[in-house]
Parts: sequence; structure tokens; C-alpha cells
Amino acid sequence: MPARLISPLWNSLALERGGAASLQDQIVGYFRDAVLRGRLKAGARVPSSRALAAEHEVSRITAVQAYDRLVAEGYLVARPGAGLFVADSVPDHHLLPDPAPARPSRPRPAAAGRPRAALPPLPAIPPRPSEVLPLSVGIPALEQFPWADWGRLSARLHRARAPELLGYGDARGEPALRRAIADYLGPARGIACSADQILVVAGAQQGIELIARALTRPGDTAWIEEPGYPLGRVALSATGLALAPVPVDAEGLDVAAGRRVAPGARLALVTPSHQYPLGALMSLRRRLALLEWADAADGWIIEDDYDGEYRYAGRPLAPLYTLDRADRVLYLGTFSKVLAPGLRLGYLVAPRDLVERLSALKTAADRHAPRLPQAVLARFIAEGRLAAHLRRTRTLYARRRLALLDALGRAAALVARESPPAGLHLVALLAGTGDDDAISRRALADRVHAAPLSRFYAGAPQARGFVLGFAGTPETEMAPAVRRLADAIAAVGAPRRARAQRASSAR
Amino acid sequence: MPARLISPLWNSLALERGGAASLQDQIVGYFRDAVLRGRLKAGARVPSSRALAAEHEVSRITAVQAYDRLVAEGYLVARPGAGLFVADSVPDHHLLPDPAPARPSRPRPAAAGRPRAALPPLPAIPPRPSEVLPLSVGIPALEQFPWADWGRLSARLHRARAPELLGYGDARGEPALRRAIADYLGPARGIACSADQILVVAGAQQGIELIARALTRPGDTAWIEEPGYPLGRVALSATGLALAPVPVDAEGLDVAAGRRVAPGARLALVTPSHQYPLGALMSLRRRLALLEWADAADGWIIEDDYDGEYRYAGRPLAPLYTLDRADRVLYLGTFSKVLAPGLRLGYLVAPRDLVERLSALKTAADRHAPRLPQAVLARFIAEGRLAAHLRRTRTLYARRRLALLDALGRAAALVARESPPAGLHLVALLAGTGDDDAISRRALADRVHAAPLSRFYAGAPQARGFVLGFAGTPETEMAPAVRRLADAIAAVGAPRRARAQRASSAR
Repeated sequence: MPARLISPLWNSLALERGGAASLQDQIVGYFRDAVLRGRLKAGARVPSSRALAAEHEVSRITAVQAYDRLVAEGYLVARPGAGLFVADSVPDHHLLPDPAPARPSRPRPAAAGRPRAALPPLPAIPPRPSEVLPLSVGIPALEQFPWADWGRLSARLHRARAPELLGYGDARGEPALRRAIADYLGPARGIACSADQILVVAGAQQGIELIARALTRPGDTAWIEEPGYPLGRVALSATGLALAPVPVDAEGLDVAAGRRVAPGARLALVTPSHQYPLGALMSLRRRLALLEWADAADGWIIEDDYDGEYRYAGRPLAPLYTLDRADRVLYLGTFSKVLAPGLRLGYLVAPRDLVERLSALKTAADRHAPRLPQAVLARFIAEGRLAAHLRRTRTLYARRRLALLDALGRAAALVARESPPAGLHLVALLAGTGDDDAISRRALADRVHAAPLSRFYAGAPQARGFVLGFAGTPETEMAPAVRRLADAIAAVGAPRRARAQRASSAR
Repeated sequence: MPARLISPLWNSLALERGGAASLQDQIVGYFRDAVLRGRLKAGARVPSSRALAAEHEVSRITAVQAYDRLVAEGYLVARPGAGLFVADSVPDHHLLPDPAPARPSRPRPAAAGRPRAALPPLPAIPPRPSEVLPLSVGIPALEQFPWADWGRLSARLHRARAPELLGYGDARGEPALRRAIADYLGPARGIACSADQILVVAGAQQGIELIARALTRPGDTAWIEEPGYPLGRVALSATGLALAPVPVDAEGLDVAAGRRVAPGARLALVTPSHQYPLGALMSLRRRLALLEWADAADGWIIEDDYDGEYRYAGRPLAPLYTLDRADRVLYLGTFSKVLAPGLRLGYLVAPRDLVERLSALKTAADRHAPRLPQAVLARFIAEGRLAAHLRRTRTLYARRRLALLDALGRAAALVARESPPAGLHLVALLAGTGDDDAISRRALADRVHAAPLSRFYAGAPQARGFVLGFAGTPETEMAPAVRRLADAIAAVGAPRRARAQRASSAR
């Protein structure tokens, strides 16, 4: 078959000099496109690199390299002594129907493929403002972050050029950090454990997910606190668990109700030190009942001790973990609340016989936490800086909590819900009726982040109000922020009544 | 009911002064234990704080605070005017049968609970030495890590005390990093995408898992390359996928074989730029066949471009992603191979309509990657440091690759498998027969990490040999390392023959 020469087409190659793409890239792109679109047919001979270079005023080396790439990518084939030809391995039906694809500096056009079948269901992620605002829940005092110590410890690590921190690490986390955490947990939380039982994770979120994946099967049921932690629900349902909301009261999760609602549950996610969000301290009676349930049901308990370090009167209570004699409790701690959420570092304390299992799933999920930040945190704890930071922020948060209570006391539309002096947030109920979600959105526009209590319920909300963080809000900003929230309550209440009146008069 | 006084028991409280636990902690621990073990019965009155203080020579405040805690924890109750009593909320059958629990500074004893039912199956994690050794696969030149730039950029960030990096961030990753990656991918890999299509993940491992969870259901089938990436298999099977190993040849994954083996597959995990571990470059014909399969089967392709930046002759090839017109390819890049695995940072490029879904699963898994390291990396890329690092290491790795080829050429027991000049590793087959796994273990004892090829097969190994990394091994160490591997081959071969002889003479 005599080779057809392609010079007519050839002239459509228009090179742009000084553009974003190199001349070589442009030549390669031109030929790729022409082959895929069928403008260059299989077996057609392409001009020699010499001719290409001369015709388009590019260097010979540019032309040769462009052709080399096209051969390497399979668009062209070289027949020794005869020249370069369009490969015959591109079947006709692969030719592109759409106009020329964008060059590498521009995104490609939208999909032109077949419509897609329904994808697996996804958990709904609650919205969160992109910046930290007054009253944001779950945010510590970021302005207190120990930058100086953190920077000093980081700089030391960078100067030491520790290559051993650059390779793959232990799935359970850096040994130095696990030792530091184990040593910290004794005095800080009364937990006796060894470094072998610690698993460093990317915050409580990953901890909940790993435990659920390690110990349950899709379709199993988990008890969750109602109301409870929305992203905990997300983690559990993302692993395929069915969720059984169990009411909480002043003694924490109602274990008897859990047995009625979902007797076959295999997992319970609880916050015994300071129920999230209502604040109850789980009573000893309930703690023992929960442990008894787990032992009898072959079930597991995730103790999410997200803010157990913060108690402003009396001493912190011993975690559920310390009462467990059947190795059914997995204790979950986080540095998000004692340092900063942006670090994405937390830890599990697991019964010894579960560590290997959790570590295998951590490997499958992301191998291990980043090593340099772990090394910095390990030194930070071992030097006693974390304990000092906790002492400092505890005093600060006690003051901020009182400032919030004071401001709430002067807002007629809000009633502070009573709870033990602990944690980083308070719940304020609406004094009247109202749509806390709509009010929250209104307040957000006024730069106050008042998380609506209704979103903490998996089922129908039993109360309306707001979960208000005080730890990240300076005392002087507390009253103005609560005032703006009260304004939002008034503003949303008024048009709702007006709308309701209009609606009833229209009937 | 008259309260029984507990003084007889009482004398068993022995306080240790100057020990690890405070006096207050010891008192609390003593009472907790006595209540839980039944030595103190419900309703029993405990001595007054004054009596406690006098009897045991502690300050009154210590005694009062200890009792306060015991009341708060529910072990004691106060009856106004009558004193403190053991609470009646601890049912008898919760009393502990085992001896006194260890104090907080010692780990608790092993579980005394009921035996556990079978837990869900877990993927087997391939072993990996805890340190980087000569010939370790998947490890770049860690001694080339840009510590100076990394330290300078980190220090700048610490000095700036950027509180906006401490709160919760975007699940998709820092906007600055996503922009930097999108800008980098054009010139580096010919990929045109916008920052909105990028999702920062904790390395390729998490990328594979997130994609599988986002786009498939447990029980679906995935094509994997045979041989292929062992931890890729782990990620896919951990999400509940069935694995269909599809053979690879000199053109990469055999798409026609895949259609025969598992016609209903919904996902394919491939390494088209440099097949892992055999090194083939996927041919254009196969690429088009794979894309056609995905479009027709409503399937998805994970393009794991783990070392696509490294090609030592010619130019890097355009990724499969750039050929995809049906938005079926999710491109996966990592900074593990171009910088360091310990950073745990990688990225996906996803079709636009899948970004929200992937981002929701990233939130469920761990919310987002740590923010400070992301900010450092963003600046590192934007300043052009990554491009410079790539240029430098490309030259270095080309030399190291030749040094390994040279050393293999002089080892009679090993045959280097031919593959394009690319990537960070080579495959060396055993010239004779032998147990590559046993040899690998032997070599490890001699401080050489020669990953056995057989472990890269999901099914029965079709070849025996080793996957040898050259990027992290200095040129001068290459020949000695290969010699130690050859010694291990000789050592393992000999006793095996001897054992076989003994076994046959015994019959």
C-alpha cells in the first residue's frame, strides 16, 4: 500500500510562539489530536522531521523530539528506511466526536460519555462556615496556640535533617508520640495504659471510623446518643452501620432505652465525660449498665473523650475506660480541642488484642499519620508544654464560660441549659418557639456561628436552641455575639409570624 | 436503717507518700476499689473528712476534695446533716472479681470478660522493614529531601502565626495547595484541570480507598493488575470489593482478559505509565480499550501515576486521564515518590461531578489533611522548588538505575527484566528456581531489602524474583547490596537442596 502523504492537512498546524505551551508540546498535541479525530488515517506517512522543521521554522531537535514522543505514545510508528507513519492501532470508533480538546493549560470540557447509573448513597455532611467565627463550637482558643514552642521544635527537627522520619512509618504512629501520650494519660485522665495500646489517628473522626470498620460488619447496628455528634453519625453510617438513636438525659445515655430500641446493637458511641452536645456527665449507674451491656452483648463501646481535659470545678472524672474490666471500651482522645483541629491528630487507647486489627485498617486507610508533625507533638508533650498549655487554657476557658453564661442571662430570647462546669461549649435553648436552623443561617450572615441544636438530632428534634462554643471567643466578644444572635432570633421570628399571618389570611 | 460504720476496713488504706500518685488520688482509688469490690456495702457511712484527715495525716482539704470527687463520680452520696454514705447504685453483680486494679501508672490486667465472637475478616498487610534499607522499593532519595527549603517555609508559617490554618479546613484540601497542584500538572504531566477537581489525600493509599468507597458498593468487583500493588489490593478489599486479578503483559493490563475474567467489574486499578511492579508502559491500543470498557460498563478507572514524573529517556508520557472523554478516569498522584512517603500527601484529579461525593467521604474518613504541612507544600510548589527537585533527582535516579543494572549484570543468579527507562525500581528475576520469599527474609537479615516478586501476585506467582528500588540507594552501595542479595540466594538455595536430600533419604 503506497503511503499517502499528509501535507494538505499538515498546513493546519499553527504554532503559537511565546505561549504557555512549548513548540514541541504544540506539535505533539496537533498530531495526537489529528490521529484521534481521524484527520490523519492509519498508515498515512507524516513529513520528515527535516521538512517539519523547515516548514514551521522550528529547530530540527524540536521536531525530532516531538516525533519521538509520538512514536513512544503509539500514535506514530517508524518503518526503518521508509519514515514515520500513523499507527494502525487506533480503531475508528475511538475517534473523538467533540471539538479539539483544550490545551494543557485549560481544563477539559465536560463529560460526553454515557449517563451514569446511580452511585452508592452518601452520608449528608452538615454545613460548616469556612472560617472560625464567634461562638463556633468545637474550636479552642486558636490565638493561644503555642506557635513559639511549635516553631522551635519544628526548626530543631528540620536542622537535624532526620531522614528516618521521611520513609514509611509505623501504622500505629511514631513510638515517641505513643510513649508521650501513654505517659500523659495517667496524670491527665487517670488512664493506665502502655504505648503499645495507643494508635495515633487523624482526629476523632478517623478513630470512630477505624473502630467501626475493625469491629462491626456492614448492616450491624450502633447506638448513638440522641442528640449527639453529627459527624460521628456520618463516620458510622459511612461504614455501613445502621444507627439507633438512644435518648440521653441528665445521667447520659439511657442504657435501658437502648436495650429496648435496638437490642441487637454491636457498638455504642458515647461521650460519658461531657455529653455532646447537652453536657451531662454519665452517672456511675449508667456507666456500669453500659459496660454490662457490652460484655453480655459481645458489643463495643467507643468512649469519645473529646473535651475531658476541661473541667472548671472539682477534678476531671475518670473515664469509662478505667472501669472496664472486660476490655470492651476503646478510648478516643483528640488534640483538636486541646491544641488545634487543623493538626488532625488524635489517638485511640485500645484493648491489646485489638491493636493489630486497628493497625491493619489504619494501613489500609492511609498507612499512618504524617511523621514530622507527630515528632513535633511528641516533644511538645514530653517537654511538659501540653500540660502547661492545658493549665493556661483551663483558666481562660473558665472565664470565657462565665462570660457566655452572663451574656445569655441578659438575652431574654435564650435560656442557658444547665450542665456541669466543663467542656468548650454551652447549650442555649430558645425561650419561645422558633426555627433554630433559620436563625442560625441569619446569624451567620451577621458573623456569628450558632450551631442549631436541631441538627444534633438524628430524628425529630426534641428541643430547639444553639450549641455555642465559648473557648475560641474572647470575653469581650461574648456579649456582642450573643446580642447578634438575639437579633437574628428577633429577625427570623418576625417575618415568620408575618408569613404565617399572610398564609392564614389567604386561605 | 442505721448506718454501719466502716472503720475496720478503713485501716487497710495505706497511703504512699512521695509516690507517683497524689494522696488525693490514692484516697479516691481506695474508695472506688472498695465500693466496686463490695468491701464497702451500699448504705455504709464513711468517716468524716475530719476523721479521715486526722487518721491518715493528710490535710483536711485533701480529704474534702477526695470525697467531693467520689460524690461527683457517684460512689458516695451525701445526706445533709448525716454525712457521707456508699451509694446504692452499684448493683452487686458489678462487683469486681479480680484482684485490685493497677494504679494509673501501670497498665491494667488483661481482659476478664466473656470470649469474643469472630470479628470481621481483615486484609493481610504485607510486612515491611521498619527502616529504609538498600534496594527498598518505593523510597525516593531521602538524603536529597529539601530540608533547607522546607524548614524555611515552615519557619515563615510559624512566624506568621496564621490562626486561619488552625481551625477546620476544606475537606478537599487547602485552596492554595490545590491551585499549586493544578498548575504543576499541566507542564509536569500534560493534565489540564482546575483546582476544583483536585482533592488532597493522605497518599495514594487513601486515594484508592476513597474512590472505591465513593463509586462502588461492597460486593462489586474490581480489576487489579496481576502482578500488582499489594497495598492497592488491601485498600480495595478493605472496602468490601471482590478482586479480579487481570494479567499484565508488555502492553500493560490485558483488557480483553479482564472482560473474560470479570465481565461485570465496576472498577479498574491500573498503573499505565509504569506498571507496578513489572514496568510496562500501557500501549495506546490498550488505553483506548480500557476507556471504552469503562464507558460501556458504567465503570471507573483509577490511574495510579505513582512515579509518572520519572522517565530517563524521552519525555514523560501523557496520562490515561488526558485521553478520557467520558469522565471515567480518576487520576491519582502522590508526593511520596517525588518528596517523601513520611509526608503522607497525595492528590486526586476527579471528574467534576464526582468531587462533592469524594469530598463527603473524605470528611467522613478524617475531615481533611493536616493544614500546616499543606501550606508548606503549596509554597514549595508555587516557588518552583518541586520542579527543581524533580530535575535534580531525575538525573540522580538515571545514574542509580544504571548502577543497579550494572550490578545485576554481574550477578549470575539474577536477570534484570527489561522495562522502559522509568520509575524508581527494577525487577530482577531469579536465574534458577528458588523461594524468593525465603531469600528476601535472608537478605533482610543482611540489611538488604529485596521485596519478593511473588508477593505482588494476588494468585499463584507466575515468576520469582525481586522488586528492587534504586532511587533511595547511593550508587556506591548498589553493587554491595546486590552482592548481599546474591549471597542470600546462594545461602537459601543450598540448605533447601540439603533439606530436600535429607527428606528423600528419610523416605
